[in-house]
Amino acid sequence: MAFPISEFHERLNQTKRRMAEAGVDLLMVTDPANMNYLTGYDAWSFYVHQMLIVTLDEEQPIWIGRGQDANAALHTTWLEENRIISYGDDYIQSSVKHPMDFICDVLKLNNYDKKIIAVEMDAYYFTAKNYVRLTEGLPDAIFKDGTNMVNWVRIIKSDREIAYLKQASRISENAMQVAFDMINEGVRECDVVAEISHAQISGTEDFGGDYPSIVPLLPTGEKTSAAHLTWSDDRFRDGDPVIIELAGVYRRYHSPLARTAVIGRPSEDMQYVSDVVLDGINTTLNAVRPGITCGELEGVWRSVIEKSGIRKESRMGYSVGLNYPPDWGEHTASLRPEDQTVLEPNMTFHLIPGIWMEKMGVEISESFRVTETGCEVLAEFPRELMIKPNIRLA
Amino acid sequence: MAFPISEFHERLNQTKRRMAEAGVDLLMVTDPANMNYLTGYDAWSFYVHQMLIVTLDEEQPIWIGRGQDANAALHTTWLEENRIISYGDDYIQSSVKHPMDFICDVLKLNNYDKKIIAVEMDAYYFTAKNYVRLTEGLPDAIFKDGTNMVNWVRIIKSDREIAYLKQASRISENAMQVAFDMINEGVRECDVVAEISHAQISGTEDFGGDYPSIVPLLPTGEKTSAAHLTWSDDRFRDGDPVIIELAGVYRRYHSPLARTAVIGRPSEDMQYVSDVVLDGINTTLNAVRPGITCGELEGVWRSVIEKSGIRKESRMGYSVGLNYPPDWGEHTASLRPEDQTVLEPNMTFHLIPGIWMEKMGVEISESFRVTETGCEVLAEFPRELMIKPNIRLA
Repeated sequence: MAFPISEFHERLNQTKRRMAEAGVDLLMVTDPANMNYLTGYDAWSFYVHQMLIVTLDEEQPIWIGRGQDANAALHTTWLEENRIISYGDDYIQSSVKHPMDFICDVLKLNNYDKKIIAVEMDAYYFTAKNYVRLTEGLPDAIFKDGTNMVNWVRIIKSDREIAYLKQASRISENAMQVAFDMINEGVRECDVVAEISHAQISGTEDFGGDYPSIVPLLPTGEKTSAAHLTWSDDRFRDGDPVIIELAGVYRRYHSPLARTAVIGRPSEDMQYVSDVVLDGINTTLNAVRPGITCGELEGVWRSVIEKSGIRKESRMGYSVGLNYPPDWGEHTASLRPEDQTVLEPNMTFHLIPGIWMEKMGVEISESFRVTETGCEVLAEFPRELMIKPNIRLA
Repeated sequence: MAFPISEFHERLNQTKRRMAEAGVDLLMVTDPANMNYLTGYDAWSFYVHQMLIVTLDEEQPIWIGRGQDANAALHTTWLEENRIISYGDDYIQSSVKHPMDFICDVLKLNNYDKKIIAVEMDAYYFTAKNYVRLTEGLPDAIFKDGTNMVNWVRIIKSDREIAYLKQASRISENAMQVAFDMINEGVRECDVVAEISHAQISGTEDFGGDYPSIVPLLPTGEKTSAAHLTWSDDRFRDGDPVIIELAGVYRRYHSPLARTAVIGRPSEDMQYVSDVVLDGINTTLNAVRPGITCGELEGVWRSVIEKSGIRKESRMGYSVGLNYPPDWGEHTASLRPEDQTVLEPNMTFHLIPGIWMEKMGVEISESFRVTETGCEVLAEFPRELMIKPNIRLA
């Protein structure tokens, strides 16, 4: 297990405190990161319906999932065997039976069917059908929205979580270096991503890496104008800008890092946008301290960017840490004008003020930890527009 | 684009035929594979709410997504620019605004708010909150369940799709060989997976690979009893069984392949279970032909396994092809007793009769295409329990 049981208990206690404050008896946890956070559960089984049942009156949650994943729950969680309940395979992707019917039966059997139940309404794997079958199956229960209830507990990291994020950062640095070393005219995009992925998963000599919740993103040339394009097998050309966005991951903890590279000479536009972004990042990182709000921090960035004439309307960062596909962001605090979250020590953010214009884009990012007095940048990697001499012209 | 526009039109026409039969005016497509299937849309942006609006009366769907992903829609789809509509970043992961409110406004503006609307109720990224906000936002619409409506169109592959699946199979073969070559006593699990991932993404000299919808699974030792565990940085030991489940992927088309390897000498149990599974697979593949149902095919397998004394209750395969995380299965036909789907030429399945016992498991699988007279196995890889001589003892 990645954490001592006492740490899981502390997380659970904080969750129950939030449940009590919200007047909730029972919380259904379907977000895989939240399931892991509370119990250690770790398997690629979130493609079938599964959940934790957390109640105020029971110490241990109940894990409910597919029969063939019950052994994974035994192997990876601190739960006792009698808290692991599984349903038959005839519930899987069936047009007749639905796992939520089974789960309703479990709740009835435990006399939870007249309780106040919170569900993660906007979590990826809690589908509309889950909700409809659940509310129909438990007509006497009262339902509340528990979206992000556990996520808000996750926002402040323990010392051990910070240690994992630092290990993840060593992997980010390696993976970014490998990408930069390999990019050049004539090289295929897919071959660079293959090297990045290798570096992410093999990790370091001392510890292995884990899979990222988002695959390496590598938009190239004009495609840098589109943030979330994945790679192709096209070959890089002279002058191509290349955005590299990746995360090192250790035990599901993510340290994201983005850089923009240019093969050969950067265009004037590219150099200008990069300089503005770098100035904005440096100024923003200098302003990070406990007590400032996310909105105020975004204002620091905005004051730099507004002088430049460059438009930037999307958020410039978000809370980051433990996660599963499809996202490494925690869905709580975002660095944007309207977010009033107050920064506290051991919050961790991915600061990514990406600029996507009509024909090109620039991404340079840092992940940071809020310290007692300021911030600590997680990955040590040169913060600059990365210029790669064209090997053919060298 | 991966397909000619005529192929997208044909897919859309088939979808509209199903809509008309179901009495549906408008279908909201949120499953990323279905979005790709109908328009070519391909980006790692499914971590925010996005969809296609398909209507009976308009030729082209409408793509609706996040502002910074609109360029990805322009780059990857055949849709005209005026069919691409995006919402502001203040809708992203906000506790105040929700993208579905924006989408409701778009539907009202197009006079679709009193229509019969089908939504993919049980698709991964169509959350409970999406559904609640949608039904509240469009009180005059009638909602139907459109789960798998497009998936059922996907079940029969075109010649071009089959060609892509064959390219994907070349990658599966490479990735499995690389894994087998590397596994040995003292090697770390993560280093084997790093090599698998490298092979998956770099592809072949002629074409690059794409990311798999499920990461390589590599349960080892007693953990082979748990189907969906990912790797650790533990080192393999003599006698360890290792399950390797992976997919080669070309342009989002998956050819999954599983094998079980043993370092050194297999236990008698392992050899026995493998022999039974192999006998079952061979017998089943011989029985594949157009006209047989999924349930009947499962019965062929069951007749082999029942004689062996081994219990196997989970489904032994499913339709496979185009997909996005978290699953490469298509959620339509499953090879299990109650499934009455009739096999037709150019359906493609992953036949994976995994056996997971208390302390060990065996997975050997094949992906196959139904032909006019039988079946064609997609990846050419020795179908056997893979024995890896222990290099230390050799």
